[in-house]
Amino acid sequence: MESFFKLKKPDEVYDIIDQFGPVGEEVVPLEDAAGRVLSSDLTAPEDLPQFFRSTMDGYAVKAKSTFGANEGMPALLEVGGEVLMGEASSVVVEAGQAVKIPTGGMLPEGADGVVMKEYCSLLDEETLEVSRTISPLENVIQPGDDFRQGAAFLNKGHRLRPQDLGVMAGLGLAEAPVFRKPRIAIISTGDEIVPVDKPALPGQVRDINRYTLGALCRRVGAEPICMGVCPDDFEALKGMSEKALIEADSLWISGGSSVGTKDLTLQVFETLPQFELLVHGISISPGKPTIIGKSGPKPVIGLPGHVASALVVAEVFMTRMVLRLSGDAGLGSHIYAGVEAELSQNIESANGREDYIRVKLIEEGESLIARPVFGKSGLISTLVEADGLIRIDMNTEGLYQGEKVRVMLFNFADGGLR
Amino acid sequence: MESFFKLKKPDEVYDIIDQFGPVGEEVVPLEDAAGRVLSSDLTAPEDLPQFFRSTMDGYAVKAKSTFGANEGMPALLEVGGEVLMGEASSVVVEAGQAVKIPTGGMLPEGADGVVMKEYCSLLDEETLEVSRTISPLENVIQPGDDFRQGAAFLNKGHRLRPQDLGVMAGLGLAEAPVFRKPRIAIISTGDEIVPVDKPALPGQVRDINRYTLGALCRRVGAEPICMGVCPDDFEALKGMSEKALIEADSLWISGGSSVGTKDLTLQVFETLPQFELLVHGISISPGKPTIIGKSGPKPVIGLPGHVASALVVAEVFMTRMVLRLSGDAGLGSHIYAGVEAELSQNIESANGREDYIRVKLIEEGESLIARPVFGKSGLISTLVEADGLIRIDMNTEGLYQGEKVRVMLFNFADGGLR
Repeated sequence: MESFFKLKKPDEVYDIIDQFGPVGEEVVPLEDAAGRVLSSDLTAPEDLPQFFRSTMDGYAVKAKSTFGANEGMPALLEVGGEVLMGEASSVVVEAGQAVKIPTGGMLPEGADGVVMKEYCSLLDEETLEVSRTISPLENVIQPGDDFRQGAAFLNKGHRLRPQDLGVMAGLGLAEAPVFRKPRIAIISTGDEIVPVDKPALPGQVRDINRYTLGALCRRVGAEPICMGVCPDDFEALKGMSEKALIEADSLWISGGSSVGTKDLTLQVFETLPQFELLVHGISISPGKPTIIGKSGPKPVIGLPGHVASALVVAEVFMTRMVLRLSGDAGLGSHIYAGVEAELSQNIESANGREDYIRVKLIEEGESLIARPVFGKSGLISTLVEADGLIRIDMNTEGLYQGEKVRVMLFNFADGGLR
Repeated sequence: MESFFKLKKPDEVYDIIDQFGPVGEEVVPLEDAAGRVLSSDLTAPEDLPQFFRSTMDGYAVKAKSTFGANEGMPALLEVGGEVLMGEASSVVVEAGQAVKIPTGGMLPEGADGVVMKEYCSLLDEETLEVSRTISPLENVIQPGDDFRQGAAFLNKGHRLRPQDLGVMAGLGLAEAPVFRKPRIAIISTGDEIVPVDKPALPGQVRDINRYTLGALCRRVGAEPICMGVCPDDFEALKGMSEKALIEADSLWISGGSSVGTKDLTLQVFETLPQFELLVHGISISPGKPTIIGKSGPKPVIGLPGHVASALVVAEVFMTRMVLRLSGDAGLGSHIYAGVEAELSQNIESANGREDYIRVKLIEEGESLIARPVFGKSGLISTLVEADGLIRIDMNTEGLYQGEKVRVMLFNFADGGLR
């Protein structure tokens, strides 16, 4: 059947994936919103901060009361009380007066600046010597300095980071409007597959894809729904697929690679409501026999049965699908595309297809070396040994030793791992 | 009090943090183990795979039956049945015989190689023409090719990725021994702080650190326990701290930066059981007034009250603390240290301290520009605008426009975001 594949190029596949959009919206408590994607623009419901605040420990004054003051000729001001944290002072600061204020304290009425305590000394309880001239608003944050009321401060499609939650909290937003996490149904097919907790008899292997694909889904913010193992049987797979699509937003089937069942997945897809075939084969290695279609708005995916191939296709294409279904607008950026490394040896590649090569990263002093991990097709140990993938372009016949390559990292949540 | 600080250098602080170790162990189901850290070395309980498997669709043969065969002079073999997926064939392959086999099928007894179907054609139901010589073990995976029984395949301290779960599943390991997630108690102190769902009166601000620090904890694999807001009151903070340390593995207090309460956090720490002060001030900006101590084995941390300073200190030092408490051995590597970018302008820096500068990343064609985000102390909007931090070394007086800098990224779970 392979000769009938109309292989799509990776860029065509990305364009097809980019047609899919977010699966729905929900509102979550702010403390559960980290890592979620905003489903609407946020505007500040009030100024942040809401009042004039001191950024220093010192004395609140009218700046003009200090004009001309220096070490040789300090200004003498009358001490008029103290600002307490968390309270609006009832004092009104007049010219020639100073009120003690802590960092973060609210400026009393009349004051327009703060003299750092380092430039102040009390001559007696009522008299302060100030040895420095300050400008109006010196050491002061104004209302709205962070954000003005009505200002858009975070956009739809933005994935919320710790500081974003902080600003939302500061503005009194106790809940976040976010896109729902896509639910991905995962089915492993194959007469030879048994669940992990069953003994594997001769000829049988345990279900690996359930765990690799499920973990990948979680890593990129989807919720896997593991449907279990299905034999290479049309009716069984059809039934399980229909059931999966009732609760899931997308269906991923891996397997169906044995001779008699090569097109079982596609045959089942073709029975699904409003099915449309979008991709039947991609010009990449590994991962050529990948199927992408949709049943109504829901992407239905046929992944290779080979565990390593399935995971590479998922890393390269399905993470992007999940981000699209999550409404993440941070796609297409190369900022987070991995690390740069130097290739340890020549690699050949067939023209006309994109090759994804597993590499191990080795630190040599200041430089990072990418060493290809080769191994027989069908082994997963190569992926365990590898730290990431490098891509060899369709129009390239290979890469040379010493060449700089970009490594797409496998590592989990590397945002914090350094 | 600041003059009494014995400021520690960042490297000294890292060394102190590195003295802390994992908080405990537990066993979790394999499907919940992604992103967790192994608490013991794993060895293969059996060979993976467990039997000789075909990597191609074709015919299982004795390789010697094909010796000398080529297109001009094919070998003629007797077809002796078919291997079904998931079953051990009862056929024994003799010299001159061939048995049909699918990719992933178990080699029948007697066979030692597989001829791809592309080189085979059936002359009749019983006679196969083979137009190629194969070597022994060609197109075959042997038992243990992934991992041999008894082989160590993943090490204690390794953070589990999708493919690692896959191999564990393949080996029948349905559970994973992992380090417990550290539980981090978070307290925000300050008479001016109110919870997010309360109206902020003049002089009051909402609790931001609870959300920024909590989200950061989650991102690096810890479980935040938010204790709430505490006034600047010795007895109240002491009580809350003692309660926190009963259930938490570490205590983080932010705040206590107002004049009268500067050392409130330290005073409370000093009353905790077996308290030892390790760090009282770090030569960095922002974040100088950071306290690190321990109560018994548990790290107790005093973070600045400034929301931006607290988050920067947490990013730079506390993520590392969490990884230590998680038993993560992947520390100290520079592989995941962020992205390289070109500085958009000169930055000055004081000698003798490390500066952490917020930067926004801008893509200009193929290159990445890091533009510093400056703003008044005490604002959090600068952190929202920024994509990451750059570090200016203690012994550097600044950085120049165009200089290559490494940006520690703020982004959430960027492992999958590309």
